Amino acid sequence: MGLKITVERSTSPKQKPDTSNLVFGKHFTDHMFIMDYDAGQGWHDPRIIPYQPISLDPAAKVFHYGQTVFEGMKAYKTPGGPVLLFRPFKNLQRLNRSNTRLSIPSIDEDLAMEALKQLIKIDEDWIPTDEGTSLYIRPFVISTQATLGVSPSEQYSFMIILSPVGSYYAEGINPVSIFVESEYVRAVAGGVGNAKTGGNYAAGLKAQEEASGKGYSQVLWLDGVHRKYIEEVGSMNVFFKIDGKVVTPALNGSILDGVTRDSVIQVLKHWNIEVEERKLSIDELVEAYRKGTLEEAFGTGTAAVISPIGELNWQGDKMTLNEGRTGPLSEKVYEFMTGLQKGVVEDPFGWVVKL
Amino acid sequence: MGLKITVERSTSPKQKPDTSNLVFGKHFTDHMFIMDYDAGQGWHDPRIIPYQPISLDPAAKVFHYGQTVFEGMKAYKTPGGPVLLFRPFKNLQRLNRSNTRLSIPSIDEDLAMEALKQLIKIDEDWIPTDEGTSLYIRPFVISTQATLGVSPSEQYSFMIILSPVGSYYAEGINPVSIFVESEYVRAVAGGVGNAKTGGNYAAGLKAQEEASGKGYSQVLWLDGVHRKYIEEVGSMNVFFKIDGKVVTPALNGSILDGVTRDSVIQVLKHWNIEVEERKLSIDELVEAYRKGTLEEAFGTGTAAVISPIGELNWQGDKMTLNEGRTGPLSEKVYEFMTGLQKGVVEDPFGWVVKL
Repeated sequence: MGLKITVERSTSPKQKPDTSNLVFGKHFTDHMFIMDYDAGQGWHDPRIIPYQPISLDPAAKVFHYGQTVFEGMKAYKTPGGPVLLFRPFKNLQRLNRSNTRLSIPSIDEDLAMEALKQLIKIDEDWIPTDEGTSLYIRPFVISTQATLGVSPSEQYSFMIILSPVGSYYAEGINPVSIFVESEYVRAVAGGVGNAKTGGNYAAGLKAQEEASGKGYSQVLWLDGVHRKYIEEVGSMNVFFKIDGKVVTPALNGSILDGVTRDSVIQVLKHWNIEVEERKLSIDELVEAYRKGTLEEAFGTGTAAVISPIGELNWQGDKMTLNEGRTGPLSEKVYEFMTGLQKGVVEDPFGWVVKL
Repeated sequence: MGLKITVERSTSPKQKPDTSNLVFGKHFTDHMFIMDYDAGQGWHDPRIIPYQPISLDPAAKVFHYGQTVFEGMKAYKTPGGPVLLFRPFKNLQRLNRSNTRLSIPSIDEDLAMEALKQLIKIDEDWIPTDEGTSLYIRPFVISTQATLGVSPSEQYSFMIILSPVGSYYAEGINPVSIFVESEYVRAVAGGVGNAKTGGNYAAGLKAQEEASGKGYSQVLWLDGVHRKYIEEVGSMNVFFKIDGKVVTPALNGSILDGVTRDSVIQVLKHWNIEVEERKLSIDELVEAYRKGTLEEAFGTGTAAVISPIGELNWQGDKMTLNEGRTGPLSEKVYEFMTGLQKGVVEDPFGWVVKL
């Protein structure tokens, strides 16, 4: 590890928000972690400092060429209990996979873990304990070199910021309505769809906006080559229960290797539920719906954990799943996953890390 | 237009760089233009201020979700002559097309043009006049709202910065060697390939880096669906002279509608050279090379104007074009285009705008 993290404590702590009504990613804690990179010198000066604005030259590459990566994780706490992290190394490993894809230098995962732990400890009082709340953790890297040539940056900043959050969806675990997207494409194999980088999210905004205008929460993305295989839902991985089995799109290079996705697959298998990771076309889904075997659907992601799908709109045809209510499997997975994360359910997987 | 641009002049002008040896996009002038957007209020406070760092919250959406667009233009000046812009409205119109695709509110093109003119006038002394030099103009929009929900930002900044530049490629008009990319994909129809947004450039870095490692300047991108139709070269549009005709990939939704591309097509037609905008496969190119009818190839873009291609490497097979020298048509187009832009060639198109 080598590098030592320095700490400068805030002398003017902020007022904490009302934790009964938290908006996702709006409030931030008193401190942040930052570490800089310069070509030749490598990553240097890891430090925890008071949460503060970043000052960048207008020519900084992040503003022009989108060379960024990020991660999302959560810390949970019950009143009087320890602070719990969920598979944090999986996220830090993925951060480095994203870094590689985006030509960003790797980050020492042990140092990042240590930074995470120290930062959370310093701002531990910010972790909300109300039902459904947690501390959202956002590690991210931005390219900061102030030159306009299109090439990998020679300077970067790696930061971690923390945000006390409620449920990602104001509606909570209630099922959402999803518009199956046939015009826009999120990503394609050979691109950056399997990296957690800003451009993937920017590419999805227009479709999301248009779906919202039609009364839908999110879009279901189809692949960019055949325009028929299911990829993700909004910014989540997606699962379907068809005729007793659970099907989720296989990792094909254009979808994100979600930590929640991986966890849910393992949990289902642990419960002896058959899980298939494979290609799944929208036609197969429609056919299953017509035959009455499309039983449930849900999205998975760090922010929402589990987001049940109540309706799918495919080219004007509406498919209502489980009468628009949260299905029993979706509910069971949600309860188990959030139980694990909060430490109220026994962890047979060794996923939960006590701070 | 309505809004009035305010001006705050710098009281500490910077030292100007040696214009005989300018690196692309490294030096910036004394002033910048900035205008802010807030939902409800719209674009407001257009102002020219001393060139200075931007201060942003670490949660600003631009750092996380890549919601950005930009443009590139050039201003030219000959000693004692007027300042010339090349089809600036085309760029501002494209900026708004990119804005629409990225869910960013439109910008008044007349106001942007006025900002551009005032800013350049104030920093006119920065425009280099040496052979091959110009003032590169970078308008760009970044999303600044400090919340982590994935949705279009409610706050933006639109900025214009200016950089005195030499030739984009240190090699000048000398032909470059190009690696035909078969692993990575830049963009796909339905995505954001035809918008000038950061994510497209981030997605190309890895391929560029690997091509550099093999001794190639840029990559030739193939389409993401069939992996065989030619799209762009590096961050430029691309033209091939085959058997006396010029062929360039048709605008298909995944390639950029380049202003230089459009201009070159019109110039060639003006010269009674046949131009085909259509699908062009790598197989057709290889076939033409074998038959000896692949005469020339060049990239087009604002930064490089014309960049002749001397060699193409397709899966290990090297195709040398025009014996690795700049072809006569490439040379002629380059001389004409740069002549137009500098005002030393008569402009039959009405493209050149005097400041």
